[in-house]
Amino acid sequence: MRVIGIDPGTTSTGWGIVESNGRTLRHIANGCIRTQPGETLPGRLGKIFSELLRIVAEYQPQQAAVEEIFVSQNVQSALKLGHARGVAIAAVNHQGLPIHEYTALQVKKSVVGYGRAEKKQMQEMVRILLCMDKNAPQDAADALGVAVCHLNHLPARLLHTASPSPLGKTV
Amino acid sequence: MRVIGIDPGTTSTGWGIVESNGRTLRHIANGCIRTQPGETLPGRLGKIFSELLRIVAEYQPQQAAVEEIFVSQNVQSALKLGHARGVAIAAVNHQGLPIHEYTALQVKKSVVGYGRAEKKQMQEMVRILLCMDKNAPQDAADALGVAVCHLNHLPARLLHTASPSPLGKTV
Repeated sequence: MRVIGIDPGTTSTGWGIVESNGRTLRHIANGCIRTQPGETLPGRLGKIFSELLRIVAEYQPQQAAVEEIFVSQNVQSALKLGHARGVAIAAVNHQGLPIHEYTALQVKKSVVGYGRAEKKQMQEMVRILLCMDKNAPQDAADALGVAVCHLNHLPARLLHTASPSPLGKTV
Repeated sequence: MRVIGIDPGTTSTGWGIVESNGRTLRHIANGCIRTQPGETLPGRLGKIFSELLRIVAEYQPQQAAVEEIFVSQNVQSALKLGHARGVAIAAVNHQGLPIHEYTALQVKKSVVGYGRAEKKQMQEMVRILLCMDKNAPQDAADALGVAVCHLNHLPARLLHTASPSPLGKTV
C-alpha cells in the first residue's frame, strides 16, 4: 500500500509518499510545493493543484492522508489555510484517491509516541522510522508523518495491496 | 465578453454567467451547486470542483470573478469557507480563466449603487439589471452580482471580445 501525506499551506505545501508491505515502512519521495511571495492567490492555488496532480501521476499512491486542522490563529490565516487545504483535497480527489483525515494528536501519537511532540522531534522520528539519510524539510516531514499515521491505522490485510514499483527517490 | 461570477460556500456555491457587448448586460445562466449535509468534506469539495469544470465547459465564460471575503465569524467557519473558495478558484484557474476579486463593498456599489445594500436588494437589482423574469436564488444572485461588477470594471474595448453563442438558459 502506497500513501501520499499532505501538509497544506499557501506558501509551502509539504508532501510525502510512504509505502508499507505490512512489515516495513519505506520512504518513496518527499518535497515541498513552494509558491512565490509576489504570486497572486489563483496563481498559488493553481500551482498547488497542478503540482499535486503531477506528483500523484508520477508516484501513484493508492490513498491520501491530510491533517485535520484546528487553527487557534486569527480568522484571516484560517481562511488562507482553508484555501490551500481545499485545493489539496480537491486535487487528490480529482485523481480518484480516497482521502483520510487525522488530527495532529493522532499523527504525533502514531509517529513519535506521544501527543505533545515538537516539530523537531517529528522530523527526527520520521527520518528514523523511514531509514532516511537526513531530515526532510519540516513541511515534508509533517506530510510523511501523516502518511505514516495513516498506514499505522490501516488494517494489515490492506497493506499488502500491490503498489507500483518503488522508486526510492527524494525530490 | 462573457463572465462567470462565483459565490463559494461548502453547502451551496452560487454561480452566474453574464455577458456584455459594451452596451447591454445579458443573463446567460445561473444556479447553485448544493452539497448534502451527510457528505464528506472531500466529497463536497469534489462536487464543487467537477460541477464548476462542467459549467465552464458548457457556457465558456472568458473571465471569472469571485468575491473577496472578510469573515467576521469564527475561525472554524473561515476555514470551511476557505476550502470552498480555494477549490472554486482552482477549478476556474484549471480551465485557464483569468480570475478577478472584488470586495463586497465594490460589488454592492456596482450593482445596487451603495455599499450597505442588503441581500434582498441585491437579488432585486440583479433581476432588474439582467431583465430576468424572477429573482435568482440568493447565492446565485450574489454570483451574478460579482459578474456584473466585473463587467462594469472592465474597459469598454474589452467588452466587445467575441463571446460564444448565447444560450439564454437558466439552470
